[in-house]
Amino acid sequence: MPPAFPKAEYDARLAKVRAAMAERNLDVYVSGDPNNHNWLTGYDAWSFYTPQIVVVQHDVDPIWIGRKMDAGAAWLTTHMTEDQVRPYPEDCVQQTGTHPMAVAGGYLADMGLDGKRIGFESDVYHLSYKAVASLQAALPNATWVDADLLINWCRAVKSDAEVAVMREAAGIASRVMQKAYDTIEPGLRQCDLVAAILAEQVGGSMNVSGDLTSLPPLILAGEAATTAHPMWTDAPFEAGQTVALELAGAHKRYNAGLARTVQLGGGTQELFDTAKAVEEGLEAVLATMRPGVTAHSVHRAWQDVLDQYGLTKDSRIGYGIGVAYTPDWGEHTISLRPNDETELEPNMTIHVMLGMWMDDWGMEMSETTLVTDDGVECLTNMPRGVYVKG
Amino acid sequence: MPPAFPKAEYDARLAKVRAAMAERNLDVYVSGDPNNHNWLTGYDAWSFYTPQIVVVQHDVDPIWIGRKMDAGAAWLTTHMTEDQVRPYPEDCVQQTGTHPMAVAGGYLADMGLDGKRIGFESDVYHLSYKAVASLQAALPNATWVDADLLINWCRAVKSDAEVAVMREAAGIASRVMQKAYDTIEPGLRQCDLVAAILAEQVGGSMNVSGDLTSLPPLILAGEAATTAHPMWTDAPFEAGQTVALELAGAHKRYNAGLARTVQLGGGTQELFDTAKAVEEGLEAVLATMRPGVTAHSVHRAWQDVLDQYGLTKDSRIGYGIGVAYTPDWGEHTISLRPNDETELEPNMTIHVMLGMWMDDWGMEMSETTLVTDDGVECLTNMPRGVYVKG
Repeated sequence: MPPAFPKAEYDARLAKVRAAMAERNLDVYVSGDPNNHNWLTGYDAWSFYTPQIVVVQHDVDPIWIGRKMDAGAAWLTTHMTEDQVRPYPEDCVQQTGTHPMAVAGGYLADMGLDGKRIGFESDVYHLSYKAVASLQAALPNATWVDADLLINWCRAVKSDAEVAVMREAAGIASRVMQKAYDTIEPGLRQCDLVAAILAEQVGGSMNVSGDLTSLPPLILAGEAATTAHPMWTDAPFEAGQTVALELAGAHKRYNAGLARTVQLGGGTQELFDTAKAVEEGLEAVLATMRPGVTAHSVHRAWQDVLDQYGLTKDSRIGYGIGVAYTPDWGEHTISLRPNDETELEPNMTIHVMLGMWMDDWGMEMSETTLVTDDGVECLTNMPRGVYVKG
Repeated sequence: MPPAFPKAEYDARLAKVRAAMAERNLDVYVSGDPNNHNWLTGYDAWSFYTPQIVVVQHDVDPIWIGRKMDAGAAWLTTHMTEDQVRPYPEDCVQQTGTHPMAVAGGYLADMGLDGKRIGFESDVYHLSYKAVASLQAALPNATWVDADLLINWCRAVKSDAEVAVMREAAGIASRVMQKAYDTIEPGLRQCDLVAAILAEQVGGSMNVSGDLTSLPPLILAGEAATTAHPMWTDAPFEAGQTVALELAGAHKRYNAGLARTVQLGGGTQELFDTAKAVEEGLEAVLATMRPGVTAHSVHRAWQDVLDQYGLTKDSRIGYGIGVAYTPDWGEHTISLRPNDETELEPNMTIHVMLGMWMDDWGMEMSETTLVTDDGVECLTNMPRGVYVKG
């Protein structure tokens, strides 16, 4: 389990982060997001359920601070050297009294960082309110600057090496959707479809193995189709049912999403009309995406089609996607929606996600896309129309 | 997808929480932990990647506040009525500017809660520093009390209905381990073993379907065996390899963990000696566990055996387990370790987890247990010795 990329790749990423820190006049950056840890150092383990941080400075190599029993993962999965890995003891894990991040804060103080200008991530899953407060209490003379998403924005434009991994992930996603098409049928339990999907995501039928995706397979069938993120059940699929499938593939922790809709025989005119409008909207989006175009302009292209058909959708229609652990594969940066002024750049990877959750049914259609030098490429590959089976 | 339990069950849980709030003199409790939301209301969706809270008061029904596109899940999976569900608009999701919890804080203020004594969860995965700060800023006259784990402690003793679900989860875990035993062999890729495990966890071979477990399957083989939470690779298993498997089953979001060790032919005397000591330690633990015994006494029984064999382990040897989403199935309450004064009570469910991560190999042995009226019962069911295959 060597690091996913060579050291030069991580060095380039570190340079990007340091430049972003300099722009914000930050001496230190404390990241609590395992997605950012992986991107910046390669660190890869299911250890983020106890708090861990990566500390970036300008003239010192990044430091990983995490639980003692997980320090081994840092040796195995990163290019870091021994002095870059600072475990905290086991007896402060999930215990009232000393918080692990109070210990980590002590390490930072020992490194002479009290009094510095320290940027931190304020809105991440795996560094809690108490974790941040414990760090801050240990360095009371530091200036703590909310610099959330600083690393996330560095991640928005992928390297060519990352794009290659995204292609593998998208390939898995496409194969997984085909597996779902081949497997789903009236009478099959939802959980049995998910079992087939998971096995295909991870073991795969090819040489490329996969990871669990950051969101689990989402099956929108029956009443659950009216909500966006239901969990599967053991109910059998029914003849005549409309089933939206939001699936994905993941490789080296990089995720590619792919959503499609299956009709198990029959199907209402409303479904097929809506699907036609959505597909036309998707084509308008793809025709608009290219470097220099703003996220809101891309959304506008979608909205224009929707307006023609008298349809409404008030949620965003896409977001940056890439390396991620659970629970979300979105990068929390660019969103395709009104008011997002971000300009597209080559090598951005964006999940264009068109979910229509109606009063008593729903459908989805998505592509994981790569912004190219002069347009956009769909990394996922699957016919877009409603797949009618039976 | 009706709620997992009848309304009376949730009413009883709510009464427990209100009593705990009264003990702390809290008018209001704000929970950001989806595990607690599920336990208290039944709410079940993969929506916790955007912030959501459940607000408990003494004389008003609990309120769910979350993303608009996920409100449907509240109708489907809980007994809550329309006025208990308060969605926030889509345009504040993952966007700089208005934080969803600033909007939620506004809802709380409108409910007249500014000036109240409000307990909150300070150390949970899905309510960030910024989320808590946004809530607090919206109710500046409230007294905000760090009451982390208040609901978690209410969850520690399971109802009989929950125990029945834990039995199903443990049954899945046991079947999954058998599936792993049947499947693993030299030459098989780790990812292919995981594919078989996931399919068995979710689809199952019986009538009971499963969920994804809160931690993924952990495969400790080769160099990765020296660290606690590695991710699987596509490397093939090797003849002579020692492989620790930390697996689980989940049903209705309740998790049961089960770890065992497989030897793919051969095996060192050190392994078998260590396994014998660990099994003896496990038996000592199980012989000690009963209502009224403290967590540290249980740990002492383990330590006494370890001392006899000259072995050391500095991490805890067990923790409360139950309903949980990713990334952790532990309840963050009782831990079997020195200084934990918690007394065991009937219907606690505890994952006794004995992982020995040595310098260049590792082994694991665990059971998910139920504290009974006069002792303990293993819910998981699988011979404990190292499973030698080939």
